[in-house]
Amino acid sequence: MINVVVLGAGNVGQHLINAFIKADEVTLVQVYNRTLAHIAQFKHDTAIIDDLSALAKADVYIIAVPDQAVHKVSKAMPLVDGVVAHTSGTTPMSVLSKHNRRGIFYPLQTFSKAITPNFASVPFLLESQAASDLLVLQNLAETLSDKIYDINSEQRRQIHLSAVMVNNFVNHINYLAFNQLEKKGLPTDLLMPLMEETLHKLTYMSPYEAQTGPAKRGDEETIRQHLALLEHETDKQVYNILTKSIREHYGKKL
Amino acid sequence: MINVVVLGAGNVGQHLINAFIKADEVTLVQVYNRTLAHIAQFKHDTAIIDDLSALAKADVYIIAVPDQAVHKVSKAMPLVDGVVAHTSGTTPMSVLSKHNRRGIFYPLQTFSKAITPNFASVPFLLESQAASDLLVLQNLAETLSDKIYDINSEQRRQIHLSAVMVNNFVNHINYLAFNQLEKKGLPTDLLMPLMEETLHKLTYMSPYEAQTGPAKRGDEETIRQHLALLEHETDKQVYNILTKSIREHYGKKL
Repeated sequence: MINVVVLGAGNVGQHLINAFIKADEVTLVQVYNRTLAHIAQFKHDTAIIDDLSALAKADVYIIAVPDQAVHKVSKAMPLVDGVVAHTSGTTPMSVLSKHNRRGIFYPLQTFSKAITPNFASVPFLLESQAASDLLVLQNLAETLSDKIYDINSEQRRQIHLSAVMVNNFVNHINYLAFNQLEKKGLPTDLLMPLMEETLHKLTYMSPYEAQTGPAKRGDEETIRQHLALLEHETDKQVYNILTKSIREHYGKKL
Repeated sequence: MINVVVLGAGNVGQHLINAFIKADEVTLVQVYNRTLAHIAQFKHDTAIIDDLSALAKADVYIIAVPDQAVHKVSKAMPLVDGVVAHTSGTTPMSVLSKHNRRGIFYPLQTFSKAITPNFASVPFLLESQAASDLLVLQNLAETLSDKIYDINSEQRRQIHLSAVMVNNFVNHINYLAFNQLEKKGLPTDLLMPLMEETLHKLTYMSPYEAQTGPAKRGDEETIRQHLALLEHETDKQVYNILTKSIREHYGKKL
């Protein structure tokens, strides 16, 4: 049995708390949040506190607060015997330097309040200061997922960059595409089968092989027509840079 | 029963031919291709020709050739009694002006040789010169899909632009993200659950609501770190423009 305390109840924290409550091999001994009302819903399942001096004994303390608050929470914690780990993709492990036993417990996924994640398919990227503590974090992550990776801080930053691309940038491009149709009163659900197939193709081939379209073909006329349909300067810039990037990667220079 | 001839056996043509062969309400009377060897596989299911003067009688002629060849094939066809339609997202209907009964039969999907599409979920965007011919194209599309849309040429160009974004641009961004990991010897399959969730979220909320990340939060430090990890100038430009575009749409100016 692994005893865990979760600090923070934002999108990541709330879903981890719920998952730990359900995990047979985990005892969630306590949840901390600055605002007690935000964790009142967990009071029948675990102890809840808003005062870090009342922190319970545990094997692992998971700090699941916004990136810029990790250091502050870590510093405000009393010294503890367990491993202190944060869940951020970009924050270095050094912000936890108050604690000798420190590490990273980063679930690579986008979390929303309304959607319960299937943690079994979420990759957990783990790191620890002391080699022996990696096993502690691995044991904890394995109670939620089969996809456990030993990833150092430099690798984690690379992965976070790629995660921002496939999530934040892709979502924004989907938004621009939807917006373009909505402005003309056209239904956006037209695009969903294509969006699904764009992803589905990658189970058969690499994105390099899956690339198609006017930029790859060097179809100047279609590119010119598309640019004429875009009304805002930034939309044109997005179109132009992505077209340039595709051409560079497929050997068709502008 | 609808009698159909398909002209062209590229990605779209091949999959349409296979789908029409299976459709109970369709008789595929003939397939034309410039190179007979490319349609030899269909000789047990239909007549195959490489000479447009031998074109059979049919209710609908579907020209499924590359955009820049549609006009040429249309002109080389003899005058026919049936409706002549092409499958292009960008080519105007006017390239078929030799034929009085003309239209558009555009399946909005990305097609690959290796993957058999599920036409039932593919939106068909239809247009016709004569109003009465729209019904003919609708009857034909309904043999393959429930998602039939009456879309004029200007709307079709808008939709094609959005399709290029959610397919070509999104796939290219996925490529850039994968490439970034491959260069560092990191596994790209790490990203798949996140890519799936990025899309899955859109069944619950709009892409505007689903947006997260450093650009939306105005997290300058993470943006600075990411730019430092990108080695090529064009990659930095892609990152900068998408970050700028997200900020503009969420009211956080650079």
